[in-house]
Amino acid sequence: MKAVQVVAYGRNPEMTDVPVPTATGPYDVVVRIGGAGVCRTDLHILEGQWAEKSGVTLPYTIGHENAGWVHAVGAAVTHVSEGDKVIVHPLITCGLCRACRSGDDVHCEQSLFPGIDTDGGYAEYLKTSARSVVRIDDALEPADVAALADAGLTAYHAVAKAARRLRPGDRCVVIGAGGLGHIGVQVLRALTAVEIVVVDRNPEALKLAETIGADHGVLADGDHVERVLELTGGRGAEVVIDFVGEGGATRDGVRMLRRAGDYHVVGYGENIDVPTIDIISAEISFIGNLVGSYNDLSELMVLAAKGKVRLHTTSYPLDRFQDALDDLDAGRVRGRAILVP
Amino acid sequence: MKAVQVVAYGRNPEMTDVPVPTATGPYDVVVRIGGAGVCRTDLHILEGQWAEKSGVTLPYTIGHENAGWVHAVGAAVTHVSEGDKVIVHPLITCGLCRACRSGDDVHCEQSLFPGIDTDGGYAEYLKTSARSVVRIDDALEPADVAALADAGLTAYHAVAKAARRLRPGDRCVVIGAGGLGHIGVQVLRALTAVEIVVVDRNPEALKLAETIGADHGVLADGDHVERVLELTGGRGAEVVIDFVGEGGATRDGVRMLRRAGDYHVVGYGENIDVPTIDIISAEISFIGNLVGSYNDLSELMVLAAKGKVRLHTTSYPLDRFQDALDDLDAGRVRGRAILVP
Amino acid sequence: MKAVQVVAYGRNPEMTDVPVPTATGPYDVVVRIGGAGVCRTDLHILEGQWAEKSGVTLPYTIGHENAGWVHAVGAAVTHVSEGDKVIVHPLITCGLCRACRSGDDVHCEQSLFPGIDTDGGYAEYLKTSARSVVRIDDALEPADVAALADAGLTAYHAVAKAARRLRPGDRCVVIGAGGLGHIGVQVLRALTAVEIVVVDRNPEALKLAETIGADHGVLADGDHVERVLELTGGRGAEVVIDFVGEGGATRDGVRMLRRAGDYHVVGYGENIDVPTIDIISAEISFIGNLVGSYNDLSELMVLAAKGKVRLHTTSYPLDRFQDALDDLDAGRVRGRAILVP
Amino acid sequence: MKAVQVVAYGRNPEMTDVPVPTATGPYDVVVRIGGAGVCRTDLHILEGQWAEKSGVTLPYTIGHENAGWVHAVGAAVTHVSEGDKVIVHPLITCGLCRACRSGDDVHCEQSLFPGIDTDGGYAEYLKTSARSVVRIDDALEPADVAALADAGLTAYHAVAKAARRLRPGDRCVVIGAGGLGHIGVQVLRALTAVEIVVVDRNPEALKLAETIGADHGVLADGDHVERVLELTGGRGAEVVIDFVGEGGATRDGVRMLRRAGDYHVVGYGENIDVPTIDIISAEISFIGNLVGSYNDLSELMVLAAKGKVRLHTTSYPLDRFQDALDDLDAGRVRGRAILVP
Repeated sequence: MKAVQVVAYGRNPEMTDVPVPTATGPYDVVVRIGGAGVCRTDLHILEGQWAEKSGVTLPYTIGHENAGWVHAVGAAVTHVSEGDKVIVHPLITCGLCRACRSGDDVHCEQSLFPGIDTDGGYAEYLKTSARSVVRIDDALEPADVAALADAGLTAYHAVAKAARRLRPGDRCVVIGAGGLGHIGVQVLRALTAVEIVVVDRNPEALKLAETIGADHGVLADGDHVERVLELTGGRGAEVVIDFVGEGGATRDGVRMLRRAGDYHVVGYGENIDVPTIDIISAEISFIGNLVGSYNDLSELMVLAAKGKVRLHTTSYPLDRFQDALDDLDAGRVRGRAILVP
Repeated sequence: MKAVQVVAYGRNPEMTDVPVPTATGPYDVVVRIGGAGVCRTDLHILEGQWAEKSGVTLPYTIGHENAGWVHAVGAAVTHVSEGDKVIVHPLITCGLCRACRSGDDVHCEQSLFPGIDTDGGYAEYLKTSARSVVRIDDALEPADVAALADAGLTAYHAVAKAARRLRPGDRCVVIGAGGLGHIGVQVLRALTAVEIVVVDRNPEALKLAETIGADHGVLADGDHVERVLELTGGRGAEVVIDFVGEGGATRDGVRMLRRAGDYHVVGYGENIDVPTIDIISAEISFIGNLVGSYNDLSELMVLAAKGKVRLHTTSYPLDRFQDALDDLDAGRVRGRAILVP
Repeated sequence: MKAVQVVAYGRNPEMTDVPVPTATGPYDVVVRIGGAGVCRTDLHILEGQWAEKSGVTLPYTIGHENAGWVHAVGAAVTHVSEGDKVIVHPLITCGLCRACRSGDDVHCEQSLFPGIDTDGGYAEYLKTSARSVVRIDDALEPADVAALADAGLTAYHAVAKAARRLRPGDRCVVIGAGGLGHIGVQVLRALTAVEIVVVDRNPEALKLAETIGADHGVLADGDHVERVLELTGGRGAEVVIDFVGEGGATRDGVRMLRRAGDYHVVGYGENIDVPTIDIISAEISFIGNLVGSYNDLSELMVLAAKGKVRLHTTSYPLDRFQDALDDLDAGRVRGRAILVP
Repeated sequence: MKAVQVVAYGRNPEMTDVPVPTATGPYDVVVRIGGAGVCRTDLHILEGQWAEKSGVTLPYTIGHENAGWVHAVGAAVTHVSEGDKVIVHPLITCGLCRACRSGDDVHCEQSLFPGIDTDGGYAEYLKTSARSVVRIDDALEPADVAALADAGLTAYHAVAKAARRLRPGDRCVVIGAGGLGHIGVQVLRALTAVEIVVVDRNPEALKLAETIGADHGVLADGDHVERVLELTGGRGAEVVIDFVGEGGATRDGVRMLRRAGDYHVVGYGENIDVPTIDIISAEISFIGNLVGSYNDLSELMVLAAKGKVRLHTTSYPLDRFQDALDDLDAGRVRGRAILVP
């Protein structure tokens, strides 16, 4: 089958021909790829930024946002069968450790991450585990939802965690209305009746945010902290969800936070650098957010099936993988780029 | 009556004679002081560090850790009466704002703080509110529990918050076994079956900690991070409660934290300065902790009455306030210094 | 002023002239009534069903669902002032007991209930407490929201409690789409992305429910349990909220509940009568629900101001109180009857 | 190997010789039995009470409270190995359904229950799954903890659920200080600082309860409801945990419950039969409790290893299974009977 592989860091990946994976283990599941999201992390992998951390041996196939149809299953698999339409959770987890058994499989003690540390989905077929496939509604197409498998799932996870404390009358600031923030606003609208204030540097992104559920858009033009404080009665918001995490976003974001508020860290780049005296005197919290669990992905797929979460995508045939990567790198992709075999 | 007042910043306070306060408002409560804790914050107030923040007009009476007997009550007060033994919550709160009505009165929108921004308890009598007095068990003496009103309450609050997620088999690191940490260990022991690891620079403090519930004491000698990791299976602790917050405690403490762990900030001084990538990739949280609520104080008094929380104190007659302050400043106080009128 | 008073049980109430109440206590608030809801409980009071329980001395003014404008305030009241538009929480609470201080003021240890055990709102003015008035949005009219003060608040409280565990993909059965259920469905839609199944005997009520957020309407015609099981994959719903509680509703409702599910009891009349073996083997819970707290009422007013909760009402001039009561008794009221002075 | 099998309902079981089970499946684990608890349910199985519910084909081996040493593991098992000392969770669960992935494996959609619906542990060896074995501390002996696998686990689960809301100063009534209640009191003492009131008909059981953590013992002699009300300030307890569930226990227990209290149902036999008006006006809840999850069992084993939970046992050689069953039936067993191969 065709597979796009990393052959060396600092070079373009190459299309090669490799054997179709087979379901040798009892819980293996082979998925015929219907769509594979092209993510900024893929660019970083190709540059070599993940080389040491992942420890993967080259060449290998990239692509960690995958959806498609079940092609083959191991002997012990009964909950999905050939032909089922599925989205693939980004991690292969053990199911035996305490984290896996607590609904927190993202912190599995011995997980694999296809596309990062083993073969991924820029290919015709992908091997994953029975624990990683979520059946999706008939109305959904794999290529349309593939990018929800990682980027969307991270946004869902952060918002669902934040939502537990949000009551009608509370305010939630969303910093960054790009890929993740855009999903985050839709999820926030679906799960809560909170007032949503979106902050972004891009007026177009703000306009879009207002059409999908934001109550207020605030341009990050230097006066944005004051503007958010005005919108929140001078006291700040109960929750800030920061999908940016760089370029001064955290410094500004903390100033938008109310006493006893929660600051959700999702985007990354800079440091959280805050005096402990400020943390204790306002009794605020900084809450990290990684990708969501398998159950989170199931829930996100319910929202997608109901049309409550929608994603803009641009499709590329698998053969045009280099165009997709180049377009992403150059900022030319509208929504998310998806490779379709 | 006698009252010890701040007359100017940078000078010693002075004993003066002022009128006994009266219960003029319907919810006023006048307490005859049985003991007033002498706290490091009092030294800071005298130096002028709180001048701007509190905005208090000099002279005024200091002392924010108070207990005694109800002396007089306002017309609308029915839940306590003259002669009742009480500890005084450090804040006077409104009872009407959303925070007060959510069990979160510490974040009251218009609170007063006797001893900080209005007259406090280095005196024979103190005026507070019906909302601020907690009746204590007959077996407890005001002078013995006064210091639990603020320092102890802060430790209780942090530990009770942390305890919600702690299960048998989990590990909790307590950084600092001084005044607050010492209470914290006792509360942790009373509320959970967690394994307690205490870190301190002082071998004596560690020895004491082990007698009141700590499972392990770790000397902060440079190898303490490694030692804690050994004690926690190489993965770190589910929760770290940092009662120090300066001198590098936070940098070391974060390294002792397990994936998905909670870092409770109680002590302060330095900055939390952590890369967002570390926060999200390990999905850790930093949780601020201020003083506890009125309900927290009630609960702490139950633990005190049952003998599950004990405090070492050294009593000084009120007239010897300057000795108490000097001894505290010079590190000569064993446990907490208490002024007894 | 005019006031409609209970003069004897088993007789119609009478319009009388009584003095306008005054704000004598420091936290008193006198409200000029803009609307008072006419509730089935009022009919029961007049019949004498509440005589023993309330212990009220006749004559007194009925009416426990009130909204209007602040007319006068006691000396200590600063958070509302004359002319403010308010809805009145049905209880006057102490603000000092543990329940009041935990956000759970409904369980206040010494509350009053105007309209039940002291003078209520079928009048031109009502005396209540500073702790009981919630300012409402300019866009809302007192007469339009008055009935949310008790019936609506009960529905909000139950749904908000139930919603804490509901995730996308879960199912919630609402039994009864009448006054409370109708509000319940709207709140459920605002606070969750859950699939809503409404069960009622009245096809018109089901039709209406579907226009305000229900995903499925099921006619209670004898086959409704089976129909609900079909709609919930044969396993039942994660949550059932029972606004009926009589006529066999609980027996049927329990059969609609999934393993580990929550059965919320709101309506009343019959007994919950279930074998303990069924409760433990399916590990289900029965959760009682009383009226909501002050904070619940604030949140409900936010939903009302956003147009997410709407109530059908029929207004009657205060003088026509007997028509309103008669129409209610005869089932002739469309939505809720409101008396307007 | 030797195995005690049910050969027909209404007859004594028989010792037979059957092949040692082998680890054929990838996640199979074969345990060499160190101890198998003899439970009242075993008597019920032999009488045929479970025949229809379990649907098991005779003959089969009974025994659902098992502990021992790992004897053999399937090809995919890496987290335990031959010789490991383990306790066996009573259920074999799938690890794939939403319940298993939420820490709620007891509600697994396709579980097996060795000893009930497939071969159990009255034998030399037992086949279970990698998902069902919990490694225990070196200091614990399988025969000493076996009975914690089901009876103890149920008590742990109920208490741990109840403990989430219990704060210092709250009261918890434990109805029944027999097998489960006795474990329950120890767990309650380990996890909370709550005041524990134990109610039982047996003065000896009360005495024992007081030595393991109960604050008060109340003899169930007809005045016990009044006595509990006296001990709880006339208001009742925040939580009642009912390990009896028959003979009028629930009727009495509800009267011991405070407003807004939780009634935990663990024991069974009679019906919960309570007017809905009482449930809503006091806003109480009835919470079912089944056996605990795998994670619960891990936590209980931590308490056992720390000596915080101890169980009285009487050992019988496996060959004397009939004596053990007869002694249990006749009420002659002190603590729990354990079969040791």
